[in-house]
Amino acid sequence: MVETNMTTHDRETEIKALLTKQKATAFREAYLDLHVYEQAQIFVDLDKTQRARLYRYLTPEEVGDMFNAIEEEPQDVVGYFKEMPLKYAGEVIYEMYTDNAVDILAYADPQDLNEYLHHVPQEAANEIREMLHYEDKTAGAIMSTEYVAITANQTVRSALQVVKKEALDAETIYYIYVIEDENKLQGVLTLRDLLTNDDDVLISDLMNTPVMSVRVNEDQAEVAQTIRDYNFLALPVTDFDDTLIGIINVDDIIDVIDEESAEDYSGFAGVDVENTPANPFRAAWSRLPWSLGLLILGLATAVVIEHYQALIQDDSTLIIFIAMIMGAAGNAGTQSLAVAARRLTNKEDESESFGKLILAEVWAGLLVGLASGLVFALIAGWWQHNYLLGLVLGLALMLSIATANLLGCLVPWGLDRIGIDSSVVPGALIATVSDVSSVILYFGLVQVFLKWMV
Amino acid sequence: MVETNMTTHDRETEIKALLTKQKATAFREAYLDLHVYEQAQIFVDLDKTQRARLYRYLTPEEVGDMFNAIEEEPQDVVGYFKEMPLKYAGEVIYEMYTDNAVDILAYADPQDLNEYLHHVPQEAANEIREMLHYEDKTAGAIMSTEYVAITANQTVRSALQVVKKEALDAETIYYIYVIEDENKLQGVLTLRDLLTNDDDVLISDLMNTPVMSVRVNEDQAEVAQTIRDYNFLALPVTDFDDTLIGIINVDDIIDVIDEESAEDYSGFAGVDVENTPANPFRAAWSRLPWSLGLLILGLATAVVIEHYQALIQDDSTLIIFIAMIMGAAGNAGTQSLAVAARRLTNKEDESESFGKLILAEVWAGLLVGLASGLVFALIAGWWQHNYLLGLVLGLALMLSIATANLLGCLVPWGLDRIGIDSSVVPGALIATVSDVSSVILYFGLVQVFLKWMV
Repeated sequence: MVETNMTTHDRETEIKALLTKQKATAFREAYLDLHVYEQAQIFVDLDKTQRARLYRYLTPEEVGDMFNAIEEEPQDVVGYFKEMPLKYAGEVIYEMYTDNAVDILAYADPQDLNEYLHHVPQEAANEIREMLHYEDKTAGAIMSTEYVAITANQTVRSALQVVKKEALDAETIYYIYVIEDENKLQGVLTLRDLLTNDDDVLISDLMNTPVMSVRVNEDQAEVAQTIRDYNFLALPVTDFDDTLIGIINVDDIIDVIDEESAEDYSGFAGVDVENTPANPFRAAWSRLPWSLGLLILGLATAVVIEHYQALIQDDSTLIIFIAMIMGAAGNAGTQSLAVAARRLTNKEDESESFGKLILAEVWAGLLVGLASGLVFALIAGWWQHNYLLGLVLGLALMLSIATANLLGCLVPWGLDRIGIDSSVVPGALIATVSDVSSVILYFGLVQVFLKWMV
Repeated sequence: MVETNMTTHDRETEIKALLTKQKATAFREAYLDLHVYEQAQIFVDLDKTQRARLYRYLTPEEVGDMFNAIEEEPQDVVGYFKEMPLKYAGEVIYEMYTDNAVDILAYADPQDLNEYLHHVPQEAANEIREMLHYEDKTAGAIMSTEYVAITANQTVRSALQVVKKEALDAETIYYIYVIEDENKLQGVLTLRDLLTNDDDVLISDLMNTPVMSVRVNEDQAEVAQTIRDYNFLALPVTDFDDTLIGIINVDDIIDVIDEESAEDYSGFAGVDVENTPANPFRAAWSRLPWSLGLLILGLATAVVIEHYQALIQDDSTLIIFIAMIMGAAGNAGTQSLAVAARRLTNKEDESESFGKLILAEVWAGLLVGLASGLVFALIAGWWQHNYLLGLVLGLALMLSIATANLLGCLVPWGLDRIGIDSSVVPGALIATVSDVSSVILYFGLVQVFLKWMV
């Protein structure tokens, strides 16, 4: 798509060759000419010898910038630090944005961590240690501590000087935060505000207040929603006494949105789609508990069918259409689940309107079931020359679909009520439970209508 | 979460009351004090009379700013223009960001559109007409035309003057694009670059080149991926002769990412989770073709079971466990589908490694199947006092799961090969097809082992 991308592969080959031939200067020139994202893409493809040379040819600052852009899982990236001389690793860590460094260091051995941080300036090391304590997937865990802060009694002129001074280190200079004593967050303004006002205007006359902010323990999904709704480029993070302790940038939020959507998808699919182990033994092992659990749950269908075994023995046509009913109900139930789980995740609706959703889904189930049931009754009746069987089958299909739809709404709603994230309800669970309800409904109906059917 | 949010509900009540009581000044004060996102949230809750008053109390510019933040579907928003005096509507449209206005106007009647645009300054009206031609979900359809452009022979000082002048209109001033004759895109620099360099430096010495850009017809999902990978705040859009025609901002991209993830989720679930009609008749109607289609496809299971009806008549225990096998295989197949579809959507892997994925999925299927099959064989054997039946069931389960996993990979891969987006393969399709393969495998095995089983 992009011109500069066309020769990605050639460039990678060329850069690897320069490392192999130990051409330090030519390597630096070619490599540093790339965007850090491209540098990172090449870096993760290098072998150990090539990486060792790269650490020799590049400064910790250059490697730190590039490490900010690595997209591998942090548990894999942490291994690279182990390959570097300790002092060099410490310097790379110091040069990285704190949030990125912390993500990775969360996976370091405690002993390694101490040794790296020994080579990081005291203040930054303390900051990293502090951030390592924030719970995963909270604002604290994804925030960055490199922001621009000024005070309300400054003028636009002096504020611009602060911005210029911080421009090289801060992750964003486009939002400027106004703080008072002890770092209390007081106001915010944008670089745009600074540029469009006279140099002598006081910040206190210009700043926006109150500031929209998030607490350090806020869930990252909520933070993402706020940034998305308000079209912010960054959002300040405060401690419990309103002290400004960091900011969350929109690029970190994009990763969060991706992560959360992959989680929803994985939850519904009943399998972690992002981190499927390449090794089939490990993949099988990770799916086995769930598969066995559902198999055991599915035993209930066997119990029900065995219970009605005598009926089937008398008339084996009864069994021909059972798979169709279960399949159709299972499909309908997973559709309902998808709609309900999404609605609950987005939390746009209050419980009142969720009640409406449940009602609507059951109605929709009855209607789809009615139409499908009619078609089914005609097919089955015509095929088996038994329109009463067709009627029973159609009725069973209709009730099975409506029940499945009800299950698809009620299960995630019930879990949500008791505080369990509704996005972890896999379609397979609803399909399996609806298999059970479908066989019960079908054979129950058969038994009721039996005296007229034979 | 946010202090300023606590009294959202009270504020909305208060603002509505001010409209009802026709207190124009108090209304303006309270309403315009809110963030545009909050203004929009209240606006969509107003009734027709209240809206008519709001148009009287607010300037087109104020309404235009607020309309930029409305999150309703564009086909619903377009109706608001019809409520306004024509000239007022034209002015609101003119004040909105072009991309947002175009999104909505795409749903206007051609005649209404002409009348609105009659009140929009010529140049802007032409721009809107032009943008209305870009295909949905391409870079052209989501780009904004409000950007800052300078030329390479300017100095930092004069560039900053341009930025200050454009600051009120441009959607972002943080990226500045360098153009040459006929708007050809030549370079890019950030506001950060301008602020950290001396006033007399020439832009040509400072700008980054070549510029990463996207073509106007590029798929929005690709644009999102680029912005995400490179952590850009915006990306320029060029015509086929490299003329700069717009930019795409990160906040538009967040909406795209959300939209695309909802599409993937909907595709897999087989139901549009974002736009489920509230009316159960319409919901049922939209799901019916798909439900009936799968029901007809599921008929194949009935054909297979009927084919083996004599076997079941002889020994009805054969049928007891069939639902469990179908259920387990269906679940495994949809898991495979989720993994494969996600892999194809992310396009990180080339076909070679997708071949590996298929192999790994089949192996994982055989392993999960083997373990489940063993458990199943023991349960069924112990329960029915027939370990040979248990063995056949276990074997059938293993092969059914492996087959379902293979289907889950091959179907999306095959569709992807012939150019169909693999994210539209619903789990229900794989589940239904795997139901058919499962009954065939099961009864096929029963027939083979029959002579020893009775």
